[in-house]
Parts: sequence; C-alpha cells; structure tokens
Amino acid sequence: MSRTRLYLFDTTLRDGAQTAGVEFSLEDKIAITAMLEELGVDYIEGGYPGANPVDTAFFEQRRTKRASFTAFGMTKRAGRSADNDPGVQALLQSQADATCFVAKAWDYQVELALGSTTDEHLEGLAETVRVAAAAGKEVLIDLEHFFDGYKANPTYALACVTAALDAGARWVVLCDTNGGTMPSEVREIVGTVLEHAPGEKLGIHPHDDTGQAVANALAAIEMGVCQVQGTLNGLGERCGNTNLVSLIPTLMLKPYYAQRFETSITLERLARLTHISRAFDDRLNRAPARQAPYVGASAFATKAGIHASALLKDFSTYEHVTPESVGNERSIMVSQQAGKSNLLTALARHDIRIEKDDPRLEKLLAEVKQREAFGYSYDGADASFCVLAHEVLGTLPSFFEVEHYRAMVERRHNAQGEEMTVTEAVVKLRIDGELLMSVAEGNGPVNALDQALRKDLGKYSALIEDVELADFKVRILDGGTGAVTRVLVESRDASGERWVTIGVSPNIIDASFEALYESITYKLLKTEAALGSTVTAHRRPVLAAG
Amino acid sequence: MSRTRLYLFDTTLRDGAQTAGVEFSLEDKIAITAMLEELGVDYIEGGYPGANPVDTAFFEQRRTKRASFTAFGMTKRAGRSADNDPGVQALLQSQADATCFVAKAWDYQVELALGSTTDEHLEGLAETVRVAAAAGKEVLIDLEHFFDGYKANPTYALACVTAALDAGARWVVLCDTNGGTMPSEVREIVGTVLEHAPGEKLGIHPHDDTGQAVANALAAIEMGVCQVQGTLNGLGERCGNTNLVSLIPTLMLKPYYAQRFETSITLERLARLTHISRAFDDRLNRAPARQAPYVGASAFATKAGIHASALLKDFSTYEHVTPESVGNERSIMVSQQAGKSNLLTALARHDIRIEKDDPRLEKLLAEVKQREAFGYSYDGADASFCVLAHEVLGTLPSFFEVEHYRAMVERRHNAQGEEMTVTEAVVKLRIDGELLMSVAEGNGPVNALDQALRKDLGKYSALIEDVELADFKVRILDGGTGAVTRVLVESRDASGERWVTIGVSPNIIDASFEALYESITYKLLKTEAALGSTVTAHRRPVLAAG
Repeated sequence: MSRTRLYLFDTTLRDGAQTAGVEFSLEDKIAITAMLEELGVDYIEGGYPGANPVDTAFFEQRRTKRASFTAFGMTKRAGRSADNDPGVQALLQSQADATCFVAKAWDYQVELALGSTTDEHLEGLAETVRVAAAAGKEVLIDLEHFFDGYKANPTYALACVTAALDAGARWVVLCDTNGGTMPSEVREIVGTVLEHAPGEKLGIHPHDDTGQAVANALAAIEMGVCQVQGTLNGLGERCGNTNLVSLIPTLMLKPYYAQRFETSITLERLARLTHISRAFDDRLNRAPARQAPYVGASAFATKAGIHASALLKDFSTYEHVTPESVGNERSIMVSQQAGKSNLLTALARHDIRIEKDDPRLEKLLAEVKQREAFGYSYDGADASFCVLAHEVLGTLPSFFEVEHYRAMVERRHNAQGEEMTVTEAVVKLRIDGELLMSVAEGNGPVNALDQALRKDLGKYSALIEDVELADFKVRILDGGTGAVTRVLVESRDASGERWVTIGVSPNIIDASFEALYESITYKLLKTEAALGSTVTAHRRPVLAAG
Repeated sequence: MSRTRLYLFDTTLRDGAQTAGVEFSLEDKIAITAMLEELGVDYIEGGYPGANPVDTAFFEQRRTKRASFTAFGMTKRAGRSADNDPGVQALLQSQADATCFVAKAWDYQVELALGSTTDEHLEGLAETVRVAAAAGKEVLIDLEHFFDGYKANPTYALACVTAALDAGARWVVLCDTNGGTMPSEVREIVGTVLEHAPGEKLGIHPHDDTGQAVANALAAIEMGVCQVQGTLNGLGERCGNTNLVSLIPTLMLKPYYAQRFETSITLERLARLTHISRAFDDRLNRAPARQAPYVGASAFATKAGIHASALLKDFSTYEHVTPESVGNERSIMVSQQAGKSNLLTALARHDIRIEKDDPRLEKLLAEVKQREAFGYSYDGADASFCVLAHEVLGTLPSFFEVEHYRAMVERRHNAQGEEMTVTEAVVKLRIDGELLMSVAEGNGPVNALDQALRKDLGKYSALIEDVELADFKVRILDGGTGAVTRVLVESRDASGERWVTIGVSPNIIDASFEALYESITYKLLKTEAALGSTVTAHRRPVLAAG
C-alpha cells in the first residue's frame, strides 16, 4: 500500500534555544546543523534573523545542503505594511529557503499580548504570507496557542488556518504552546480542523509539560497531520518540545506507523541516532540521559534477575526493537545476582573472550559478589568491571605502581589577612623500576591527587593527555562492617567516549584515588588494545587494589 | 456526577530497584516509604521478600501506616503445590497486606522462559491466587507481556485474566513489559479485555521505552481501567516505568480527568509533590531533571523573549496549571511576590516570624537567589536555610569562630611493610576570646575534621554530644564560573530529629567543613530555643560563611 509522506521539522536551534541554561554560539549552530543533516530531517529552523546578532549572522549564508533552511519570525505588526515591517523583511532578505511566521490563534491572546484586533491580526497574517510567497520563500505559519484558542473560540482559530492557506501558505502548524493539551483532545480538535484543511498542509508542534509531547505528535499524525515539529533530545522551553530522537524510531520501526508512513530518514541514518543524540549532549556539555527512550545508556540494559535469564534465551521478548537499529547497545549488567552467562556477555562487551567452563569465570563471579557485598556496584561502573576482569583473569598489565600518596588541605589567613585554602598532593610511583614523584596543587584533594597522578606518568603521559574528569559522585553506604564511601568517577577523552570507574573505602580519599587510578588504567587498556600491546609491563600494583 | 475512584500503585521499591545504578538499602526503603506515604498513594510495593536479605528484612514489619503494604513475587512453580513453594510462602509469611504475583500472559514466554506448559502455568496462577487469598492477603496478579501476548494469542492472554479473577484476585494488572506498545494499541486491546473483565478490577503497568508511559496509562484509564502502576520520577528498568510524579497532577488538575476520576491524593498533598520528587532524587544522589513535567526547575521557567512579556500580563496563558498547585515555583525575573510568600512559609517552619513588608525579607530573598545561582540548593537543606535566615535577619548568635583548619591524608607503608592510610585534622577555634585547638584522626578528612571540630567546643561540648553524622553526599555542579562541589550532610541527634545542611565550594573540603559547621550551628540554635537563650555569644564567624 502507498505510504503517506511525513515531514520532520527540527526547531532545536530556535525553540530549543529557549531552554534554560542553553545559549548557542554561531559555531554551535553550524555544528548542530551538521548533526541534523547527518540525521536527515526535512526542515532545519535555524533561528530568528534580525532578533540577535548570532541568528542574523547564521542566516547570511545558506547553512544546509539537503534540508530546507528555515527562518523564524513574527507576522507583520498592525499599522504598517509587510513591505515596511523590518521584522518580516529580515526574514525575506535572509538566505533562508523557507520562512516560518508565528501568529496567534487565540483571540484573547491577540488582544492581550498584541493589543491588536482579531481582524487586523488575521489580515496581517494573510498579507505576510502573500509577501513572503511573492519573495520566493516557502511559507509556514505557526499558530501559537492553537488548542487553547480553539477551546475558547473555534471560529477564530479555524479562520486563522483557512486565511493562511488561502493566502498561499505551504504549511499551517498547530502549536500546543503551553503544553497542556491531552492526546485525546489533540485527536478531537485535529479531527475538526481536517474538515476545513487538508492533512498534507497541516503540522503539529507539541510541548512536553505533561510528559506527552511524543504521544500528542503521534495522535495528530494518526489523524492525518503530515508535519511534526520537535527538537534533538527534547530541548525546549520549560519541559521541552517533542523529542525527535524518541519520535523518529517509533515512526520508522513500529509496524503501525512504518506501514502507513514514510519519512526522509533511511534505516542507515537511523542507526546513527544514538551517536547523534550523544554528540549533541556533548556539544551542550550535558550528561546524556541514561533512561532516554531508544538512545539512553540504560534503554537496552537489564539487571540480572528474573528478566535476564529469559532475555538471554530470546532478546526480542524484552526488547521492543533491536538496539542495533538505533545504534545503541544491549547491556546486561553485572550485579549481586549475576550469573555466569551475564558475566560472559559483559566480558564480550570488552572483547574479553573466555570459555563458559573456564574456572577463572567462577573466580571472577566470586570476586564481583564479594566486592558488591562490600559496597562496590559494577552495573554503573563498567570500566572498573573491565579492569577487575583483566586482573582476575591474569591479563592486566602492571602499567605502573603507586608507592605512596598524600593530600593536604589547609584553610588559613594569608599575609594580607584574607581567608585562603591551599590544597597540595604528592604522588610517588614506579614505572619499570624507575621512581617518579610529582607534586601538584588543586582546588580540592581529589583534584590535586588527579593532577599529581597524571603529571608525570613517564612513557604513558602522552597516552592519557586527553583524559578529563567529567563527573564525580560520592555516597556513604552502610557496609557490612560500618560506613564506607563509594566514589564514582566519570571520565571522557577526545574520542567522545565516556567511562565510569568506582572506588570504595572507609576513607573518601582512598576511594577517590582508586577510582582515578582505575580510570587511567582503563584508558591505557583501551589504548593498548588499539595500538596492539606495545605499552605493557609486569603486574598490577598492590596499592590501588584497595 | 459521581467520579470513578482510581487506585495509585507505586512500585518504586520493586520495579524501580531494577534501574541501572540504583540499589536500595533497608534505610533507603524506609525513607522512601515515608515519602510515598506523604504523597498518599494507595499501594506501596516494597520488594520481593525471599529474593534478597534487604527485601526479606523490609517485610519483617508492616512498614506503611496508610497505604497497602505490598509484596511482589512469582506464582508457584510447576511441579509443586503453592503450600510447598518457598517463594510463595515467603510472601504469605511476610507482614504484607497485599501480595502481587507475576505470571506470564504470553504463551511463547511461558514455554520459553519457564519451560512449563500453558495449562500448568494457568493452573499455577489460579492456585497461587486461592492460597494467598485464603491466607488473608489481598491478591494482585501482574500479567507480564500482556500486550505482546495478546497480539500473539489473545485467547491465552484473556484466559489468564479470567483465571485470576475467578480464583479471587482483587486486581489483574496488564503489563507492557518491554514498553513497546502504542497508546492506540492500549486503547484497542484494553477495550477487548473490558468485554471479559470489569474495569474496577483491572490495572495498567506501562514502561517508557517509546516515551509514552504516561500516555499509555491515560489511554487505559480513559477506557475504564481503575489502577495504575508507576514509580517516583519514572524510576525503573531500561527507560523506566510510568512516572507517577508526571501522571498524578494530570489526573488531578486537568479538567477532563478531574471531572471523571478521583484519587487518594488531596490537593494539599499534591502541593508537596515538587518537594517529594526532589527529596527522592537527593536520596538517590541524583540531580533532579530540570525539564521534568510539573516539578522540574524549568517546568515554569520562561526566558525573556516573546513569551515573557505576554506571560507577565496573564500567567495562565503560558502555564497550563499553576506552579503552586504542585509546590513548584514560577521562574522569571519579576516573581518576587511569589518568592516572598514561599519564604514566609519556610521561615514559619523554623518559628521565625517576620512581617511581609519587612525589608530584611527582600534581602533574604536576594541572598537565597544569589546562593542558588552559585550552586546552593536550600530545597533539600532546610537546616542551612534556617542558619542563613538567622544570619541575614541579624539573629544568629556567634557561638564560636573558626580561625584555621587543616586536613591531611597519607597512604604509605608502615614499619611492617603493610599498606596503611593515616588521616589527621587540626581545627583552631575561638570561644569568648579563648583559643581552643584540637587534633583528631578519622577514617577520612571530613570525618577527621568533624572529630576535631567537636573535640573541644568549650561550654557547648555537652550540648552537641549526641549529634551524629547520618549521611554525606557530594556532587559536582557546573556553576556559573566553573565546577563547584556541593556537599549535603545529614545529621541526627538523640531526639531522633534529622537535619540537612549544605556547603558549596570549588574545594570539597571547604564545602564539607561549611556543612559540618552549619550542622553544629543548627543544633546549637535549636538547643538554645529549647533552653531559652542561655548559651549565646556575639557574631557569626567569617570563616564558615564562605
């Protein structure tokens, strides 16, 4: 059967820029446009030329190769012609292919916010569409407050739709501006709109204020709307816009939609989705959401327990789509109830191949359980699991041995009588018999130890240069014999990979040092694997084994 | 019109425990139960007695006052009677009010995962229900894989529903185990189930793998299902369960649902929702999601721009519900008024009475906002808020002044060649002009500083003898000018009261010392209030204010 074409409109760079704490530079906008083109959306709304210098500069060139490059702005103001409206002209003179003008579909808002009459506003909408179309732009109209407006005055809301289409707009987009509309209401109201306008000219623009932006988009699509607006990772004002990263796989992989609709995105591009989503978070300097649908680190993760054994028999029963289809990975976590088959899967993830009846597997299982009883938790610290596995299996090179470390923090008055804190750390280590001793300051004892540890790692120094501490978390646990401190360190390197290591000890400094040590060991292990074993030494040091 | 009663079933402590990186201690389970009771859900599923020592211990007492205390387990195994099944017996002998047994509604899964026949499984389900009901428990059956099972073999899936009800189950819960079902499918399949079973005996258990767990729950409720299962903040395996924190306000505040349904939760309790959601994240040592519906820090935040000016004219046009209804706050520059009344409420909690037009209130508001911009968060650190309020209002006695402190941690070999870590701290303080200097060892720098700080507090020593450090949490935040460390210290005393103080600094030791200092100050403040001001001195020390 012939499938209906759905158009994907990305507004990450426009509505997404309304997110608290997000501010895009010109470079950000260029880099994010490249991500969106890699994904393959139809429209990239780049911003609001004329409203700020970054957006104006962004629209001085056509920034897309494939997607329609779209500028956002307001319809002309009352009391002047569109030709004399500098806001409208900024869009028309930009290098945009398409222009998306926002108008208000709620009579109360027109009077309250614009201080305009509803007739003037309607006429301004139509004139703006005509002028933009005459200037050669594809024209979209975003109807702000459409659903609330429809509830208050359906006649006016529908008049906005028909006025825009009659004037030549390619698309009219129904916006749930405050995000409060329910899927059942979307279904009902869109149904009425479709009696006045064709679905192939309608779009939907939901917000996630009740956690239903994706469901609202799908409700509108099921009714017949053919364009959906959203953002990467659900960026956007308040609770965010429709998350395209959640929506797209559903449209492409779930049979109900895949049979009825087609999009601009190929299955090959879909397999880049996890990568694109995480690269976008990296760009924003945010930690990716672990529980994000499809692309989260936990999206295909199962803890050992009642599900894991069934999962191993047939992945499809606990996975509604395959992790590979969106470029994600299955992860069966190692934890208290870990069995041998979980362990084998976890080892395979680190390219450690071992037979099921190898006695070292039993030993590793016992070691994991003993450590978890003490306070370790390997399901969140996969890099430490990798290091531990190599150690127990006897395949961990002793890159270096730590002989001694010390950290000191002092709060005192300086010579001028001002308060100051001084932090200093010393690390003494041995590489191939040679003793190396480093001292460093830091803005805390862990930071100072980290600095001192990496300051001189001899032949390894160049290999760990790009490692950065991305996050550091501490918890006190009631261990079996008293309180212990659990430290989780998240590291990242220039490749974009992130890994988590763990340290547990009654002493927070020892726990932190262990996690730092394992982070560097993990980095050396993966570098060694990439280089082919050129940097190894004899045995693992006693000290950091903790 | 008479409204249908909806039942809220929380599974944070059971399905939520499947979340990657989450492991609840007995203390966590007790604390989270208190949060759930404060919210007012109907059922609290506490875990799986018999499966692990924490859950078994948790079910040795009835842990709820109001909610139905619910134990989870599997229906009896094939080949033995329920009376001889240790799994089933662990639930029946627990102190649970209700027992929720999981059975599989997908014939393929029964054969694959259980290696049992479908008839045996159906009979086992019914026998388990009968035995549990005879033992005086309210019985729930979770039908795992219900929707996939229904698609594969509707006859068997429906037979599971009717077998459970015929055997006397109070509830049959339809589980979307892999989270892949769409709201439109939920609507259709639930519609058929309702031809065979009454809605007042059916529950829904969605997962968020397509970002539609809330929409799936609402779809089932709209069809007539009367129980919904979910978790706090959407915790749960993979992408999580239905987020009750998102769902509950929709059910209570959106007219469509509020007119048709009632829940166990009052509007007064709903106004504690933001607090409960954030306290739960604190317990897990996670940063609350800023964009979370209703309770996120950004949920009612508007950036200056096209929306803010309209918002200022009428809040209701950009807010689908009021922030106060869920205990959240609007965040735009000018919302001083809302801020002030919140502040007065918080002050009254500490018996600090002040007039609404007192200029010091403005000053306190500014101070709180400035500190929160830097990384403080008084929402979870009420004792620090109390200390700060007294300081800004000029009513904080200077109990003692800290002049200097130092902490040192050293890892080295002792004379016998064994590894050892030595931690030592020195604190120098002044009370009524007298200089007191103490040194102490500890199992970490914070512990050593804590010991040294309390070792000799002169005339206050007896008053703080019963203070204990109950918990200590650390997070790195991206502050405005770089990374800062936020430390939360929970203290308790012989009265059983617990209080939380906060410290923020680029240096973890300074942040920790600030939180320790404020904890002791808070204890002295409350002792002083109890004794009637017999222990006060002049002004607050400079050092710990930083």
